[in-house]
Amino acid sequence: MKIYEKEGFAYSALYSEMREKIVRGAFKRGDKLPPKRVVAEEKGVSVITVEHAYGLLCEEGYAEGRERKGYYVTYSEEDWFSTGGEKIIIGGHTGGGKDLSAFSLPLATYKKTARVVLNKYGGALLTRSAKRGTKELLCAVKRYLNRKYGINVSENQIIVGAGSEYLYGVLALTLKDRGVFAVESPSYHKIEKTYSAHGVACDPLSLGEDGVKSEELKRTTAKVLHVTPYGSFPTGITASPGKKREYLAWVQSDGRTLIEDDFESEFALGVKNAETIFSLDKSGKTVYLNSFTKTLSPAIRAAYMVLPQALLKEYEDKAGFFACTVPKFEQYLIAELLDSGDFEKHVNRVRNKLRREKITRV
Amino acid sequence: MKIYEKEGFAYSALYSEMREKIVRGAFKRGDKLPPKRVVAEEKGVSVITVEHAYGLLCEEGYAEGRERKGYYVTYSEEDWFSTGGEKIIIGGHTGGGKDLSAFSLPLATYKKTARVVLNKYGGALLTRSAKRGTKELLCAVKRYLNRKYGINVSENQIIVGAGSEYLYGVLALTLKDRGVFAVESPSYHKIEKTYSAHGVACDPLSLGEDGVKSEELKRTTAKVLHVTPYGSFPTGITASPGKKREYLAWVQSDGRTLIEDDFESEFALGVKNAETIFSLDKSGKTVYLNSFTKTLSPAIRAAYMVLPQALLKEYEDKAGFFACTVPKFEQYLIAELLDSGDFEKHVNRVRNKLRREKITRV
Repeated sequence: MKIYEKEGFAYSALYSEMREKIVRGAFKRGDKLPPKRVVAEEKGVSVITVEHAYGLLCEEGYAEGRERKGYYVTYSEEDWFSTGGEKIIIGGHTGGGKDLSAFSLPLATYKKTARVVLNKYGGALLTRSAKRGTKELLCAVKRYLNRKYGINVSENQIIVGAGSEYLYGVLALTLKDRGVFAVESPSYHKIEKTYSAHGVACDPLSLGEDGVKSEELKRTTAKVLHVTPYGSFPTGITASPGKKREYLAWVQSDGRTLIEDDFESEFALGVKNAETIFSLDKSGKTVYLNSFTKTLSPAIRAAYMVLPQALLKEYEDKAGFFACTVPKFEQYLIAELLDSGDFEKHVNRVRNKLRREKITRV
Repeated sequence: MKIYEKEGFAYSALYSEMREKIVRGAFKRGDKLPPKRVVAEEKGVSVITVEHAYGLLCEEGYAEGRERKGYYVTYSEEDWFSTGGEKIIIGGHTGGGKDLSAFSLPLATYKKTARVVLNKYGGALLTRSAKRGTKELLCAVKRYLNRKYGINVSENQIIVGAGSEYLYGVLALTLKDRGVFAVESPSYHKIEKTYSAHGVACDPLSLGEDGVKSEELKRTTAKVLHVTPYGSFPTGITASPGKKREYLAWVQSDGRTLIEDDFESEFALGVKNAETIFSLDKSGKTVYLNSFTKTLSPAIRAAYMVLPQALLKEYEDKAGFFACTVPKFEQYLIAELLDSGDFEKHVNRVRNKLRREKITRV
């Protein structure tokens, strides 16, 4: 099983394998998972690696560790419900007013990278960007999505724009012919406001313990569902694996699209981030949306979305003619931060801070 | 008449006075204007100053110089038609493909200013911008509009956004309840495309020699009229003073709004720019829109609009909640370029180039 070690993500690959087994029912709720030493030997990895993988299964709500007894499966497809995870409220979707400077990129890193960009790109700093974003940024985001979330897409599925709100608008223009959009209630107020401003009627679906209530999902006639599965603002609710699968089941019906607004999962306190619905959705009906405005600084207006292949034509027809709204400078800056590792270093620094101080960001 | 000299804009003040006299009918078409020496003596300014003012009246289509005879009025309100001006096509609204690098800000100036910004602003580079734009940029634009176009507004009437197209969208969201928008035909295709994408029906009005045909203005039931009075793309048509007054008359009726899309008048080849409809409109029903994307570089996504006071509440209600889409860095950069004089130096350099080479930019 050398592939695990070679990729440097042994625990991650093992986690995925175990998760799949649990979801497919190879292990059922209440089952004990194989002892760490046994798995380590079988897979040819270290016990530490297995420990990491098991820890991640626990954080994601698939299993739980019992003192001196081992790890037990807690996930069950039948009741669409998991043990749920942490409910830390980190609400990046706060708007102005709060001092979030402790979570911004350090000024020194920003300046250093800005100078690298000014020296490196020359005349390209003043030429027009491709509409969806510069090749440099799209490829850097693609690599980042792959290593961080296991999302494997082509760079032509990625579109960058001047902040999440701007991309909500682009999605409204692209999908408004479908009719009503369902949104979480409560949720970040600008989601519904932006859709409404674009003439889209919104159906607010009430939230239960781990996301939109099942009966609400059944009730709505909306064709588009916008969810914030990680640390939803203002409730702090994070969708359980079961709830994510419920969203996935919802989106399977004809003409439905799910918008996964992952506005701040970078600051998840687990070993690794929550798995994305986008990567779980093999049917290609989910849009993944994330923002650098939250993770880098509110002064840097840049967000991105990943469209499933099936939506590319619709996007191109309805909103593909818009020029890119992010200046070249910021595009190169973010690409540099992603490729140099400074972005992940910064995110880890903030996560450690949150962990140490048990900060509740609202 | 010391005020002329004191203000350092003697010719400009004299021009305005003479223009008002012509428009109000104190001088009629065919009338000879007072000889330069006479005016110079009467006003206590130099002959050169009068020459500049008369030259400007000619460029703006109010008068013409006849060899050894003096200056004669060519403007007549009755036929809504002037002698028209130059028809140089400089079409900044070209989209990608063309090499416009000769018209971009010099890279050295960009880099120098970028370094000034990085050194000067510190932590403010990473904090959230006010929604309409940073105070620094709004005030710099306000001062620029005043000295360049004689537009005198409060900075709270100015809104910056990520390019003209983005602001077209904001205007669509703000004004779409009015119904149909009238646009020039032909015109830059993204104007109609953006409005249509936002669900606004467009009524294309055909162009005559100096702008939208009078019968088309009478015919349309649109409440919003979007014009590009300077160097309209792709025709290169520049509205005559008479046509501008026709637009002004059109907008007087209840519930009407004029959008003056002044996408590139900075590159006008006259001594001074064409007067804006915004500044002529004492009724406050015109929106003025301009873009730095055209004058600085297509890589810098920044445009601005000036709303009349009467529209501020409607804007605030419909689209005022959107976060500013221009990063802090570009906002400070443009403010620096405007305040240092580098912006106007660059514009003059391009104008000289256009004049020398008689370039037709399409």
